[in-house]
Amino acid sequence: MGKVKVGVLGATGTVGQKFITLLKDHPFFDITDLVASERSKGKIYKEACSWKQEVDMPEQVKNMSVKSYDEHLEAKIFFSGLDANVAGEIETYLAEKGCVVISNSKNHRMDVDVPISIPEINPEHFEVCKHQKSKGFIVTNSNCSTMFLAIALAPLHKKFGIEKLIVSTMQAVSGAGYPGVPSLDILGNVVPFIGGEEEKIQIELKKMLGTYKDGKIVDADFVVSAHCNRVAVIDGHTETVSILFKNKPTVEQVKEILANFKTEVQDMDLPMSPEKPIVVMEEENRPQPRFDVLKHKGMATFVGRIRKCPVFDIKMVVLGHNTIRGAAGAAILNAEYMYKKGLLKDII
Amino acid sequence: MGKVKVGVLGATGTVGQKFITLLKDHPFFDITDLVASERSKGKIYKEACSWKQEVDMPEQVKNMSVKSYDEHLEAKIFFSGLDANVAGEIETYLAEKGCVVISNSKNHRMDVDVPISIPEINPEHFEVCKHQKSKGFIVTNSNCSTMFLAIALAPLHKKFGIEKLIVSTMQAVSGAGYPGVPSLDILGNVVPFIGGEEEKIQIELKKMLGTYKDGKIVDADFVVSAHCNRVAVIDGHTETVSILFKNKPTVEQVKEILANFKTEVQDMDLPMSPEKPIVVMEEENRPQPRFDVLKHKGMATFVGRIRKCPVFDIKMVVLGHNTIRGAAGAAILNAEYMYKKGLLKDII
Amino acid sequence: MGKVKVGVLGATGTVGQKFITLLKDHPFFDITDLVASERSKGKIYKEACSWKQEVDMPEQVKNMSVKSYDEHLEAKIFFSGLDANVAGEIETYLAEKGCVVISNSKNHRMDVDVPISIPEINPEHFEVCKHQKSKGFIVTNSNCSTMFLAIALAPLHKKFGIEKLIVSTMQAVSGAGYPGVPSLDILGNVVPFIGGEEEKIQIELKKMLGTYKDGKIVDADFVVSAHCNRVAVIDGHTETVSILFKNKPTVEQVKEILANFKTEVQDMDLPMSPEKPIVVMEEENRPQPRFDVLKHKGMATFVGRIRKCPVFDIKMVVLGHNTIRGAAGAAILNAEYMYKKGLLKDII
Amino acid sequence: MGKVKVGVLGATGTVGQKFITLLKDHPFFDITDLVASERSKGKIYKEACSWKQEVDMPEQVKNMSVKSYDEHLEAKIFFSGLDANVAGEIETYLAEKGCVVISNSKNHRMDVDVPISIPEINPEHFEVCKHQKSKGFIVTNSNCSTMFLAIALAPLHKKFGIEKLIVSTMQAVSGAGYPGVPSLDILGNVVPFIGGEEEKIQIELKKMLGTYKDGKIVDADFVVSAHCNRVAVIDGHTETVSILFKNKPTVEQVKEILANFKTEVQDMDLPMSPEKPIVVMEEENRPQPRFDVLKHKGMATFVGRIRKCPVFDIKMVVLGHNTIRGAAGAAILNAEYMYKKGLLKDII
Repeated sequence: MGKVKVGVLGATGTVGQKFITLLKDHPFFDITDLVASERSKGKIYKEACSWKQEVDMPEQVKNMSVKSYDEHLEAKIFFSGLDANVAGEIETYLAEKGCVVISNSKNHRMDVDVPISIPEINPEHFEVCKHQKSKGFIVTNSNCSTMFLAIALAPLHKKFGIEKLIVSTMQAVSGAGYPGVPSLDILGNVVPFIGGEEEKIQIELKKMLGTYKDGKIVDADFVVSAHCNRVAVIDGHTETVSILFKNKPTVEQVKEILANFKTEVQDMDLPMSPEKPIVVMEEENRPQPRFDVLKHKGMATFVGRIRKCPVFDIKMVVLGHNTIRGAAGAAILNAEYMYKKGLLKDII
Repeated sequence: MGKVKVGVLGATGTVGQKFITLLKDHPFFDITDLVASERSKGKIYKEACSWKQEVDMPEQVKNMSVKSYDEHLEAKIFFSGLDANVAGEIETYLAEKGCVVISNSKNHRMDVDVPISIPEINPEHFEVCKHQKSKGFIVTNSNCSTMFLAIALAPLHKKFGIEKLIVSTMQAVSGAGYPGVPSLDILGNVVPFIGGEEEKIQIELKKMLGTYKDGKIVDADFVVSAHCNRVAVIDGHTETVSILFKNKPTVEQVKEILANFKTEVQDMDLPMSPEKPIVVMEEENRPQPRFDVLKHKGMATFVGRIRKCPVFDIKMVVLGHNTIRGAAGAAILNAEYMYKKGLLKDII
Repeated sequence: MGKVKVGVLGATGTVGQKFITLLKDHPFFDITDLVASERSKGKIYKEACSWKQEVDMPEQVKNMSVKSYDEHLEAKIFFSGLDANVAGEIETYLAEKGCVVISNSKNHRMDVDVPISIPEINPEHFEVCKHQKSKGFIVTNSNCSTMFLAIALAPLHKKFGIEKLIVSTMQAVSGAGYPGVPSLDILGNVVPFIGGEEEKIQIELKKMLGTYKDGKIVDADFVVSAHCNRVAVIDGHTETVSILFKNKPTVEQVKEILANFKTEVQDMDLPMSPEKPIVVMEEENRPQPRFDVLKHKGMATFVGRIRKCPVFDIKMVVLGHNTIRGAAGAAILNAEYMYKKGLLKDII
Repeated sequence: MGKVKVGVLGATGTVGQKFITLLKDHPFFDITDLVASERSKGKIYKEACSWKQEVDMPEQVKNMSVKSYDEHLEAKIFFSGLDANVAGEIETYLAEKGCVVISNSKNHRMDVDVPISIPEINPEHFEVCKHQKSKGFIVTNSNCSTMFLAIALAPLHKKFGIEKLIVSTMQAVSGAGYPGVPSLDILGNVVPFIGGEEEKIQIELKKMLGTYKDGKIVDADFVVSAHCNRVAVIDGHTETVSILFKNKPTVEQVKEILANFKTEVQDMDLPMSPEKPIVVMEEENRPQPRFDVLKHKGMATFVGRIRKCPVFDIKMVVLGHNTIRGAAGAAILNAEYMYKKGLLKDII
């Protein structure tokens, strides 16, 4: 039996390129459709795309013709790295035509019947897709800076109940796409603002750690305050977090729960899955993007400096790879999980 | 009448070099003594020092002989940029010999009879020096990352009463001196740890915003939690802060109080004093170290993005120049203030 | 008698902003016209412009209305920082209307009757303007990377005769304007290509060091090979040069001639003129952009590491500030020189 | 039959760590000895070493005891990443005891009976080792910045005869080891000097491209001039080169010869060998360290922008990974080649 045909929406963009890079020689999926904007339509991929990956463009895609979303597409499963200004409509269009769209774009994340899915922390949220009215359906992953927080906090929230948290991020420039942040703005600088980012963290996190009940996702009831900053890092968002819990954990308990966090996903042989979703680091000055972010395929969430917070209960540092675990890799893991769980079998 | 003779302790180090740079052609003070370690003793300054400033070494100091702290020194007033491992002893020695030491080093900051002084926010703290038992006395300024917070928070604390605050810093490499941070550790990286820094912020801030009463400084009674990070910036510490107040201010009130903050210092014609201690920025993405930190002689504290905090009351971004307002410039301003107020007149 | 009215063409761009910054409180010139593209026309400057300077926008220009080049303009003297795609036509239009255009744009540089002027090295080239057919005239300065080479080589060429030279540049991102170089392309990277730059150095240098004879500029007869690279520096182009001379100088002679280079410009009290056009550095690892480029108002050319070249005769390192001496500052110095020499008096 | 036991000299340093990283799970070699200075002796490796690699420390070495070079060592084959101030003596000591030292240090490179070996370009140079008087022998690889030049130039020199060349480098900070270059010296900066580096390129290159004749290596007879610069790049030296040939090639010939360069090494199944030693790039702005340097295991030499030089014949850009192909990887490839060729069989 052959591989599942998949397409990449926004194939020439930064996230699209990462999808293509990560899907190279994938054991489950085979790229059959590269979809981009009108401007690229009809061109062969290697000419339509300004390739910005640190590995060569896979041979397989070099000479594929770039398609438009509304022409005939072979695949039924689509990874979306579309720009927010077009993602909403195109993803809906494809879902209505019977496709599954596994999206990294923000547009449908807060739709009541669309989950923001991370297989390790809220697999039951996939259920909500059944309430989507289209023939196919849409699944999203969160904003990159929210992703690592959600993963690091999920086991703690479950055990101790988060009440409040304040997070301050130091985010990589790759999060802004290409051309993205001008060098004159970020070389030797910090930009203490990323449009819309703080709101995303403050809202998405509560949905992701929410409870699936009676066909609905009920938001978690904690309060979040985010400060978002851009720094001169290529890949890897570093975040400092202070957390207030309902039930007070010790520092040792927090370390133990995070270090031992394991889910069914780890036993499912999913190519994109890290060995462990969370890596706890004991060195006093880790994690660091430059030294850690590429470990474990860029799919681990690194947590370090777990210690008492004088104002709240616990403070710590969280790090993850924003274009892999925080974007393309997360979507592919969602697809792998759904594939193995049979959630795609009515479609493919 | 001539200028006051001053000496620089730790003259070959990063802070020492900044003292020399800022004291060039100073209307009140004239450098007569450059003091450094045994290793440099007897050498002429330009040979003892690996000059790392962006302006040329002032002619005046080039051929001065570097002295040891325990030989004959002409000055009675000393600026100290000594390393913490020797500062404690040498500063005490000089104070006991009848000198005034205006120190940027941490050693004496938490001594009960030594103030951490900022003329604009706690001028009454100078009083505590009278209780020092030596013939001379010691005055300190705070750790660089605490400085900007203290200035930005002082008028708010006075008016509304701070209860709790959580701060996350993104600090420049110049704060670590020279050679300091290896490039392999910080290029394209964030280091989420600076040894001892979080503790300094958590403790010094409460002393600086404390009350002088009955010959003593009584710490402010709020609680602080700090997360300290190093980023690839040359000069300028950026800090994100969330603050809980006893009496709830509006965002507009906070902006107004900070923008209008003015003290007697602004009317005293002190060369190192900025026109306004605090500059409130309204642009959504400011302040930024690259574009703002050198304005107003590097002596202003920049506050931006003042807005509601979903968890506490107010959140904002604070920026200052760590080696000027946060170190050498702060010490010189202390000296200028003391000179004009007559606090040095028994010594010189 | 009042100041001369001047206008800035391309006022909202990077070079335009630098013109405005450097013309603040200028003793000869007063900005009366800010000219930009249709898109900005009619807006007040502070709203039309994304200000990217490290000092505040001068009060004077904040509320000036941005004009179009073809409406009524008060000034007769214009500084041009226009984009190459419009500069040619607009500069010609204004010259024909009787204005003097002192341009930083490349379009007219190689016109036979337009000089590429540096008052210190080829003041006689201004003569060629008399052959321009318009009522006014156009004067240009060279491409930024050529500028420092031309200044450093002029006194050597005069004395020893350059035969061949090979130069390799490491150029700052500010040379590409704003938004210019994406951070994803330059953080932790070197881009060994800058479109059109090598050709400019190879051609402009020969015109600038050429001879004015019988109403014409005759190119210098040496051969140049340039390698141009972009590096992660904000301001300052560093260039390594190997030079073959007709008459062989010693290293000491080269140092002496460069260190003592002085022209009438140094005695003319021109605000933009550096005390010395060339600063020779003896330290083994200088000049460096970070530590040197802002010295002497950003108007000096720094030359260091003058030594024997095993292949040619002499090799050395040249550094200059690309947006000041290499662009806006050079144009202003041209204007100041022309003003003092009476070359503008028929126009103003 | 088991793997060959190997030791790493200077195991805690930057090059030592890279040896350990690259030797993990090596099919021919097995690390049995980690040798470092007195200070580390007796400690277990993970405590003796400040690990600065982007992958985790291999389990195998974590708890190995660090040894001194003069105690009992199991291996007979040693990779040396020793500091130049001790390498000379220790390497000689081990060779005299009958070991093979494959060294990345500079000390013995210019010894008349020690080759600077690159299997792809001068395999016949290994012969010279027979003239070493010790029981074992020493083989070196070149300085990192010379390596890529040597590889890129070897096939051209063979075919067309190089007469002269001028090279200007932009070298990564990892070349200076750890802590190496202070961040205050290189952030946003270029340092146009690297101690001893220019001389190494100028001398080593001629030996490497020299001819083995009558038991001796006769230097190539061209002349080299090098300009060496440090830039804010982590890994990857970029070099611009202008070359004068005895027999004039066309640009197309140069491209063809480099692109088709292939040696017996490519057919020997050596784990460290790149598929092709030289990768010719046709994009106008490549190679670039950030995007290319890690391809082909960091073992390829990238050549781009091959074009006419107005002063010499050909100019081009050369890039390689300085700590892999330029250091540890080169030494391991030497070892692999010698192992397969039977050059180690008398020793092991």
